[in-house]
Amino acid sequence: MSSTFALPPYRPPDFEAPSLLCAPIAKHAPAPADGILPENFHATSNLPEYVQLSRGRWVLCPESRMDAAIVVHGHELRVVEPRDVRKGEPVVVGRTENGEEGILVHADGFGPPAGCSDKFQFNIRRTRESPFSRDYDSLYDLLRYERENGGVIVWVLGPAVAFDKDSRDAMVDLIRNGYCQALLAGNALATHDLEAAVFGTGLGQDIYHQRQHPLGHYNHLDVLNRARRHNSLGDAVKSMGIEDGIMASCLTQGVPVVLAGSIRDDGPLPDVTADAYESQRRMRACARRATTAIAVATQLHAIAFGNMLPSYQITPDGVRPVYFYIVDMSEFAVDKLANRGSMQATGITTNAQDFMVNVRRALVGNHD
Amino acid sequence: MSSTFALPPYRPPDFEAPSLLCAPIAKHAPAPADGILPENFHATSNLPEYVQLSRGRWVLCPESRMDAAIVVHGHELRVVEPRDVRKGEPVVVGRTENGEEGILVHADGFGPPAGCSDKFQFNIRRTRESPFSRDYDSLYDLLRYERENGGVIVWVLGPAVAFDKDSRDAMVDLIRNGYCQALLAGNALATHDLEAAVFGTGLGQDIYHQRQHPLGHYNHLDVLNRARRHNSLGDAVKSMGIEDGIMASCLTQGVPVVLAGSIRDDGPLPDVTADAYESQRRMRACARRATTAIAVATQLHAIAFGNMLPSYQITPDGVRPVYFYIVDMSEFAVDKLANRGSMQATGITTNAQDFMVNVRRALVGNHD
Amino acid sequence: MSSTFALPPYRPPDFEAPSLLCAPIAKHAPAPADGILPENFHATSNLPEYVQLSRGRWVLCPESRMDAAIVVHGHELRVVEPRDVRKGEPVVVGRTENGEEGILVHADGFGPPAGCSDKFQFNIRRTRESPFSRDYDSLYDLLRYERENGGVIVWVLGPAVAFDKDSRDAMVDLIRNGYCQALLAGNALATHDLEAAVFGTGLGQDIYHQRQHPLGHYNHLDVLNRARRHNSLGDAVKSMGIEDGIMASCLTQGVPVVLAGSIRDDGPLPDVTADAYESQRRMRACARRATTAIAVATQLHAIAFGNMLPSYQITPDGVRPVYFYIVDMSEFAVDKLANRGSMQATGITTNAQDFMVNVRRALVGNHD
Amino acid sequence: MSSTFALPPYRPPDFEAPSLLCAPIAKHAPAPADGILPENFHATSNLPEYVQLSRGRWVLCPESRMDAAIVVHGHELRVVEPRDVRKGEPVVVGRTENGEEGILVHADGFGPPAGCSDKFQFNIRRTRESPFSRDYDSLYDLLRYERENGGVIVWVLGPAVAFDKDSRDAMVDLIRNGYCQALLAGNALATHDLEAAVFGTGLGQDIYHQRQHPLGHYNHLDVLNRARRHNSLGDAVKSMGIEDGIMASCLTQGVPVVLAGSIRDDGPLPDVTADAYESQRRMRACARRATTAIAVATQLHAIAFGNMLPSYQITPDGVRPVYFYIVDMSEFAVDKLANRGSMQATGITTNAQDFMVNVRRALVGNHD
Repeated sequence: MSSTFALPPYRPPDFEAPSLLCAPIAKHAPAPADGILPENFHATSNLPEYVQLSRGRWVLCPESRMDAAIVVHGHELRVVEPRDVRKGEPVVVGRTENGEEGILVHADGFGPPAGCSDKFQFNIRRTRESPFSRDYDSLYDLLRYERENGGVIVWVLGPAVAFDKDSRDAMVDLIRNGYCQALLAGNALATHDLEAAVFGTGLGQDIYHQRQHPLGHYNHLDVLNRARRHNSLGDAVKSMGIEDGIMASCLTQGVPVVLAGSIRDDGPLPDVTADAYESQRRMRACARRATTAIAVATQLHAIAFGNMLPSYQITPDGVRPVYFYIVDMSEFAVDKLANRGSMQATGITTNAQDFMVNVRRALVGNHD
Repeated sequence: MSSTFALPPYRPPDFEAPSLLCAPIAKHAPAPADGILPENFHATSNLPEYVQLSRGRWVLCPESRMDAAIVVHGHELRVVEPRDVRKGEPVVVGRTENGEEGILVHADGFGPPAGCSDKFQFNIRRTRESPFSRDYDSLYDLLRYERENGGVIVWVLGPAVAFDKDSRDAMVDLIRNGYCQALLAGNALATHDLEAAVFGTGLGQDIYHQRQHPLGHYNHLDVLNRARRHNSLGDAVKSMGIEDGIMASCLTQGVPVVLAGSIRDDGPLPDVTADAYESQRRMRACARRATTAIAVATQLHAIAFGNMLPSYQITPDGVRPVYFYIVDMSEFAVDKLANRGSMQATGITTNAQDFMVNVRRALVGNHD
Repeated sequence: MSSTFALPPYRPPDFEAPSLLCAPIAKHAPAPADGILPENFHATSNLPEYVQLSRGRWVLCPESRMDAAIVVHGHELRVVEPRDVRKGEPVVVGRTENGEEGILVHADGFGPPAGCSDKFQFNIRRTRESPFSRDYDSLYDLLRYERENGGVIVWVLGPAVAFDKDSRDAMVDLIRNGYCQALLAGNALATHDLEAAVFGTGLGQDIYHQRQHPLGHYNHLDVLNRARRHNSLGDAVKSMGIEDGIMASCLTQGVPVVLAGSIRDDGPLPDVTADAYESQRRMRACARRATTAIAVATQLHAIAFGNMLPSYQITPDGVRPVYFYIVDMSEFAVDKLANRGSMQATGITTNAQDFMVNVRRALVGNHD
Repeated sequence: MSSTFALPPYRPPDFEAPSLLCAPIAKHAPAPADGILPENFHATSNLPEYVQLSRGRWVLCPESRMDAAIVVHGHELRVVEPRDVRKGEPVVVGRTENGEEGILVHADGFGPPAGCSDKFQFNIRRTRESPFSRDYDSLYDLLRYERENGGVIVWVLGPAVAFDKDSRDAMVDLIRNGYCQALLAGNALATHDLEAAVFGTGLGQDIYHQRQHPLGHYNHLDVLNRARRHNSLGDAVKSMGIEDGIMASCLTQGVPVVLAGSIRDDGPLPDVTADAYESQRRMRACARRATTAIAVATQLHAIAFGNMLPSYQITPDGVRPVYFYIVDMSEFAVDKLANRGSMQATGITTNAQDFMVNVRRALVGNHD
């Protein structure tokens, strides 16, 4: 099935509006030290933001993310992590959003959210009882579109995706069929994926038959112990003769994988990044390219990646939106993401396993 | 401690506004049969609603609730359950809300909700991580005010309130100290309260020591079997020699109790209402008088009572708001209530036991 | 696909075991009044229970449910609701379970639960992260078996099943294809199913496009108002020209429907039972015949029906197990059911919509 | 109030039992490389484990944690992280638990868990409806005992503890009154604690009045930017003139703080550990000393710390249990911890704010 999806057109701000015509040139101030911003620094949202660098020249930030600084670089802007700003770099200052200080946050570039204005209405909040058949259909169509048009689909996975056979198989199929351009996860997802390949279990429990294997709690430790003899995850997978699963498929397909270490880890596997901020850098490299992101069954990684993900990308064809889906069992996870600012996220409140299997079935076909 | 609470003043609509000055007289149509409304009937919200019965005479509905009909009764209005409308009664028709058909829904009589207009902000949704110390303090002050000023505090309780010793004791203290003017619950709350009085258990588990009693699953059956020999709950409690607990305290203090039967019930106890719609009638009799309602750990009863509860009462002193608190472990319960229209509800996302103990401690003092 | 499912054989107790050979004849005592049991009455579990009525004659209760009484009826047993026992009827007394009083609760007739005996193991509790692909596969196979062998599949549905187009369509397909022999629900499921048929909405929200309809909060009230002009749900559906949906399909297929009224109801629709205990009787009539039951997205009805559902049925071929699945977003729902004694229930922790669509797809085929 | 708590006596294994008398000496094998264990390595549980090093000499592991290796060090044992084992070190091998290979896992040193053996019972699983008044009382008594007897109470806190004024004040009081010997958290808890000190907000929302501050989403960024000018958290707090709050109290009281960085962090603050495995080392240094641990509102840290925490400590007086409480809104968090092996954890299913305020009130007195 070919995609019928069409990107919504981007409507730039009306810079001829009186309030913008008389807006001042944006100010900047030098960073007082490495990793320190000047007073009154401006922090980016994940929305398109324009800075008036000279009279009438409003420059769109070339990328965006929440809570970054804007450094003026000649006639251009760079969006930089506060901790990566170097002493003396000119940082845009000002906290107003409507041009008063030469900074414009453009909230409705892709159209206003649809609404209904009755004083009294039901179903104002999205819960587990909200219908989402159409969200699935839209997502399927979007993913087909991305695949056909060189989009970058980033998956952010919690370990539950590897704890069930059908769910793990589904992810493998999606990777093999071109629906995954980057994969972000922690040590646990990767470890349990290898455990499934070697032993057929997740934390000692058969991922299909659900039986506990005798001494199964050793399985992931044995996997880690074997894999750690190697210098890279690729070597480990190859040497251990692993040919199926999420990690193996990413390696075969050349899909970049970022594995961020955490304080919960055993092992870790080779190629897991121990330093949290180095992990952020690698995740951000993916966020910068992402056109659609899907976070499944992981609050920590979903919120972390949500903080990094822009709401738009600048492409040769113009400005396009970035889509973000978060799949979780709990309304709390989706609400928390909104509370951290990721308002563009579409929440699908269901089990990771059902979600994965549904997406596979729609995009790759039925393996039942 | 005396209450420092002050009711917010009610601001009636500005009937001199041009849009209302030219509003038509409201229309009505006869009910075509008992329990059947005419086409285009108007359904009430829980907000103050005015109907223009004659030129310039806007009559405030004397009570309100969600999804009721308005029957014109001479120069007055009656708010009636659709199923209780009799054939031929004149029912107000029209579905607009701003006077276009002589009906005005007055959403901001107690002031607009406080807001903040940044384009970008955090914490837009209330979750388990939202601060609620002040909600407690406000609630304590409100309850003191109600007690001192003849308010009507209605408690709507799930069985969990009786499953823990401290929580059950807390409710008893609140009843004995004048903080409960009506109690709504199901057969389970009452049964487990009596089980606690007779056996010290809830479903066989000691409500303090948490131990399972041997054959404890018989406890509630034995309680029911003994109580059912009597014609009323009062007789049963007296004959069984029960002097402590929620039911006994209500009986001693003359607090009316409405026990609505459900399909989950064993027994039931005497005085449990079997007919769901008769239960509604009795609950509504409480809703009509309520000035503050608190629903604890019961989705079914909270949503049912939320549907019945007006957002205001007309008192000799004027129009005052009705307060509604819902205490539940799940954001879903509060969201669901909002999705059913009870937007005035303040959600406190915590465990029933902690909530009950806190309220007791603040209002009655510390029994630790 | 034909079912490969095989019922596990039933292993009766070994009545030649010494402890049973010397067990006494069970005692009984007359009920002291209508609806009142004698002291020390025996209450049934949902397990097979045997009563020794005369030396060596152990009679299996012909049906079972939690917390019922056993009345001796000549040489047979009747399992009766406590409230339905009549004065003077001989009620079995005794609370031991291993024959000490002539009563034997037979917990492992269908084999012991599989286990693993490491001192240390992971994954001892079932959560949203437990794999359930195999539960689905087993369920599909079981449902095919039931359909091919005259089983009785009872569905117990919460309103969420009707709030989403694909989920509602799925239920319709299952009914039409012989996978539903009885349907239990409340007024809300039926009302929103009719609302979907008439308006395409659930509580005013489009069940596919998710948009709020203007004045959509009137939709279910209009549906109720129209339907209530008729004396039965069947007449209402026919007169309103409704041909699709869950209710219409049940009527067409002759599937019995039990709609239990609750205190949350608007309306209600014709054929909704107002009396909670009359609703129980009707639900129990279904429980008595059920061979597999599936409760979806409804805690109240799931727990109520779980209390009524036996763990076995006596068929012409012998004793067979009764299967019970509960589908809910919350571990709490499944745990609560276990806490109320329904230990045979298999919990599937996911969204109702995904569950329904999966079952339809596996059994009826793909309509995407 | 003085503590009435008494530690349960430790019952060592009966090494004269025949099965142990004939048990072999445990084997060991050299680690083949740094951070790599030999085949068939033994992994510790968090239970007391004994290794027979020479005939009749069973040595208790001097500490324990889940999934560590045991290195033989002369006549003693060392429990070592697998990744910290050096090439050639002798690692105990064998996976049986009852002495078959000279290794004994001693599961019931502090007595068997209390039980009840009815075939049928209610309330077998702990949920939000389980009573916990006694858990509170036991915890209060335990904490008094620890304070009076030189115990080591470790708190593991999620950011929610700092998002509410009363909750934050409660933690401060507990620190100041000797009820906290170590504090483990992430960058977020510390940042929002400082935000509360400087601005009175958490993520821009007033921690008491709940109002969003205008531009409040800058508050934590400004706090981070100021604090990052300093080389240590202590310098930052002092220079910023912060005298109240959790961080300031720890610094004043000399309570060690471990702040583990994560991929979700802004900043980070000085003294936050970027490397996940270095964070583990620091957390483990606390785990090794802990006699009671309390994890509040943080799944990631609770599971991480639960993996490190032994179930016992060897003190000059003998072997004593280590207590672990986990406070969370979700049964899932507690279940997940059990699924990862921390079976000794007592779950309290409630809101962090209520929990903190309760503990403060019981131990320090009422500040209302």
